[in-house]
Amino acid sequence: MSSNSSSRLGKLYLVPAPLDFGCAQQSPLDQSMPMATLSAAACLQYWICENAKSTRAYLKRIAEITPLTGPLQSLDLQELPRAVHKKGDHHGEFDARHLLQAALAGHDIGLVSEAGMPAVADPGSSVVRAAHDLGIEVVALVGPVSLLLALAGSGLNGQNFAFVGYVPATPSERAQRIKELENHALKTGQTQILIETPYRNQGLLQTLLQTLQPTTRLASASGLTLSSACHHSGTVTQWKQKAWTVDNKIPTVFCMGR
Amino acid sequence: MSSNSSSRLGKLYLVPAPLDFGCAQQSPLDQSMPMATLSAAACLQYWICENAKSTRAYLKRIAEITPLTGPLQSLDLQELPRAVHKKGDHHGEFDARHLLQAALAGHDIGLVSEAGMPAVADPGSSVVRAAHDLGIEVVALVGPVSLLLALAGSGLNGQNFAFVGYVPATPSERAQRIKELENHALKTGQTQILIETPYRNQGLLQTLLQTLQPTTRLASASGLTLSSACHHSGTVTQWKQKAWTVDNKIPTVFCMGR
Repeated sequence: MSSNSSSRLGKLYLVPAPLDFGCAQQSPLDQSMPMATLSAAACLQYWICENAKSTRAYLKRIAEITPLTGPLQSLDLQELPRAVHKKGDHHGEFDARHLLQAALAGHDIGLVSEAGMPAVADPGSSVVRAAHDLGIEVVALVGPVSLLLALAGSGLNGQNFAFVGYVPATPSERAQRIKELENHALKTGQTQILIETPYRNQGLLQTLLQTLQPTTRLASASGLTLSSACHHSGTVTQWKQKAWTVDNKIPTVFCMGR
Repeated sequence: MSSNSSSRLGKLYLVPAPLDFGCAQQSPLDQSMPMATLSAAACLQYWICENAKSTRAYLKRIAEITPLTGPLQSLDLQELPRAVHKKGDHHGEFDARHLLQAALAGHDIGLVSEAGMPAVADPGSSVVRAAHDLGIEVVALVGPVSLLLALAGSGLNGQNFAFVGYVPATPSERAQRIKELENHALKTGQTQILIETPYRNQGLLQTLLQTLQPTTRLASASGLTLSSACHHSGTVTQWKQKAWTVDNKIPTVFCMGR
């Protein structure tokens, strides 16, 4: 409990979402979510989300397991502004305090993103920061985090790692950035984790295989928490020998290092 | 499924453990663990672990929820060598293939650490790497990861972050390392996540408050998944004004950035 929180204030719950967003296949919620997380989410009347439609779809899945606090239509869903999705909201330029009115009035609020943990590789940190600024207690609930499942399954260094997000889309800039990240990984031993919009997975893999040194270790993790989940891990030479590929329709996380 | 895995081989399951290791208070397992994770763990006869005693204690907690595959005494627990705990096992110097004999014989194996996700801020990556080298399928199960719960609850940049592990124990080296990390965080916007042995939490906090610039943002997350879980987040100036502290008996994760 934050020392400056008041019992009159609601709390901000960080509610993880399943990782099957946008996938043809869905994973059962109990595959990736503790019951305590689903129960806490089911109690919430107020929500801050990336997209109200997909949040309703998630809440409908929760309702199949445990009853919601009221009818789906009665829940109060506020969307984060679109500009915050695109540019990210960690620059401190977006003031999210107005989204937390319900908590100031004593109601608990849920923060949820499209997949995984809100505010990690997803928007939401502006809301968490605003909560701290207002003395609203923050509670992070347990759920799936694709980056860390990918890292654990990579066999790469998990004692020193960085998530660097997306690499540039322009081929030359992309290759340069990948070389930069590889140099850093090889020099410091820090595993570098990167992601791409699914339909560009194969393109990113191609650039990685063309750009990285033969002995650099590369790992992919696709469809995490789905029954089709797949990890590959080996040197660039092994990747080429085994002709491993990734799917352009399934969320994939890449890790590289030594 | 890894393309080179064979149906005759067992799989390597990465089994997360609750975060209350060494804490006076325990969190109910359903607070932090999906039922599917507990069910998968309960089926495993073969284990690779940091410490057999604490793994047995964890399995006993699982058995209270879902029956194990056999009596606790009958399970096969192999400990990672002590040298691997201390130095980490991501250097590629430790060959863990001999630990995976059971999988080569067709049995599934669980890999577990003392708390959280194995191979993340904990030993285990040598085992995962060996599994990939042997064509053994790796399955990462969902559970709590303190680093990411801390990051999500920090309000700091979650779109670019690094986990850097422990800082040096010697005061001058420690302060220098913290300055180095702060410079990197302020320059690149990359949140830096660090941890300390619990009994040194207050010492680390003191050095952070003495070393960081007044406007740098610092966050702590203590006792994650426990009912006493506590996040603090603010500028160094705010930390001093509010006289926030951390507990020397509870695992704590620190995040810093701009």
